[in-house]
Amino acid sequence: MLIGLIIIGGEAIMSYKGLNLRKEVKKVIHLVLHAIALILGIIGIYAAFKYHNESAIVNLYSLHSWLGIAVISLYGIQWLYGFVIFFYPGGSTGLRSESLPWHVLFGLFVYILAVANAAIGFLEKLTFLENSGLAKYGSEALLVNFTAVITILYGAFVIFSVASQGPAEDDYSYSAI
Amino acid sequence: MLIGLIIIGGEAIMSYKGLNLRKEVKKVIHLVLHAIALILGIIGIYAAFKYHNESAIVNLYSLHSWLGIAVISLYGIQWLYGFVIFFYPGGSTGLRSESLPWHVLFGLFVYILAVANAAIGFLEKLTFLENSGLAKYGSEALLVNFTAVITILYGAFVIFSVASQGPAEDDYSYSAI
Repeated sequence: MLIGLIIIGGEAIMSYKGLNLRKEVKKVIHLVLHAIALILGIIGIYAAFKYHNESAIVNLYSLHSWLGIAVISLYGIQWLYGFVIFFYPGGSTGLRSESLPWHVLFGLFVYILAVANAAIGFLEKLTFLENSGLAKYGSEALLVNFTAVITILYGAFVIFSVASQGPAEDDYSYSAI
Repeated sequence: MLIGLIIIGGEAIMSYKGLNLRKEVKKVIHLVLHAIALILGIIGIYAAFKYHNESAIVNLYSLHSWLGIAVISLYGIQWLYGFVIFFYPGGSTGLRSESLPWHVLFGLFVYILAVANAAIGFLEKLTFLENSGLAKYGSEALLVNFTAVITILYGAFVIFSVASQGPAEDDYSYSAI
């Protein structure tokens, strides 16, 4: 779920803003990366349920699980809306331009929620381990906490990349030197 | 810490964008509300250390505590920078206009981090209680989880209010009907 929703999902967001390619090419990269992120997220959730069921742990009681279901549902809705309106078959010009800022805002909301939920997941898992005897200041605990901090910083830079000015729109991707 | 950093901090953010008052008045409201939020946050952190020390629980081992120290430090730096540059004595016009977008961006980053850390704190405390025998689907557990969900939704609406168009700048706060 970290590799999918956070890392590849973040690259999907940054690719649309940062790459200096034709709009149609960037759209394909954007939606394919998000599709990979979504599929990896779904596999991650499936694995969590499978682990719970095989270990006789109850499902869907924690905030992490609730937010995880919210993230994957909203991510899927956002992907479907983007595909239908901006890619194929594509909405009217008015609908596209009206809904683009909402696509960006809602997408950032879902991404931030995913990053926050990743941090919650790191803390939850580590708390379970520490309750089972893992040293609170041991190297494993520090590794988990620093991974969470780096995840948050990665998420912050993804957001900053969206807030920044991208390269000029260039529908032909050619410039004389 | 919820009432201070999240609720009053959120109102401080929304007040600057949403109130239809003179800029100088809005600045005072903005910085006073943020000062209250900061002070309540510091009291909350003091209370956490006091509780830990009196209960013989070690300090600063969890992600929640690390992020909490980061949030309160960044919140303080952000408040001081805003006070010195935008209020008193005030920076040059160039510095103000150059750093205003960064003030907004950094402020939103710190606020989102505070909201995320509140959610982490809810989950951490509830996990401790559940490890001590609290029912995982009991009404107390649901209450904590729903409070966390509402906190996240409140934070999201604060961010949306900043992303939206505010009322027109009006330095004289008077308009004929």
